[in-house]
Amino acid sequence: MNLRPVGILRSSLTDRKDAPRQGAEGAPDAWIEIEAWARDALLGIAVGDALLVLTWLHEADRRTLRVHPRNLPENEIAGVFATRSPDRPNPIGIHPVTVRAIEGLRMQVGPIEAIDGTPVLDLKADC
Amino acid sequence: MNLRPVGILRSSLTDRKDAPRQGAEGAPDAWIEIEAWARDALLGIAVGDALLVLTWLHEADRRTLRVHPRNLPENEIAGVFATRSPDRPNPIGIHPVTVRAIEGLRMQVGPIEAIDGTPVLDLKADC
Repeated sequence: MNLRPVGILRSSLTDRKDAPRQGAEGAPDAWIEIEAWARDALLGIAVGDALLVLTWLHEADRRTLRVHPRNLPENEIAGVFATRSPDRPNPIGIHPVTVRAIEGLRMQVGPIEAIDGTPVLDLKADC
Repeated sequence: MNLRPVGILRSSLTDRKDAPRQGAEGAPDAWIEIEAWARDALLGIAVGDALLVLTWLHEADRRTLRVHPRNLPENEIAGVFATRSPDRPNPIGIHPVTVRAIEGLRMQVGPIEAIDGTPVLDLKADC
């Protein structure tokens, strides 16, 4: 079970500390640079489409099993499976986005809270 | 980027050919057996919760980049990123489910169209 990134995210967000907790909480648009070998998989995607972007949250702590939700100490501790914490055994991010622009192998999507340099694992129709 | 399964799916569906295309299209409930090391990550999950189950679609063809959507020849060929095809470079399934029962490290969820023996990668709050 080895993942092979299909692209990389290019965002104005560069520090996990500054990232909103979810895309709908004020996240910016960002660009995905798709790998040339995956070009054929883009066929049929158009501006305005609703997609799920799957990412590898590369700065996550994979040993974390319990958290205070949203990193607020006043929230009762919970297992990561009951939360959306990025820190979890397999740190796969799921980001519902709208396609804003397509330029060859580059696609602008948003809003998305993942930081610059985040590996992109997959795009899926959001239906 | 190595995935470590957190559990395994136990389902009455044993053949990919018989599985519905999506959970909401007549899929059954199934059981997830969570690995003992991940027990702490379950804290706070209750019957009735809405979760996303992430799976590794282990029978997928990872070389597939274009498909006829829903495997119907009359559907125009499309890139896998524009579809929900299980055949794709990183075959991660996303399944919105409801928690039906919890018995220690076993959790019944549904509806879910993944087949028996599918590795489970993650559970997330569906919010």
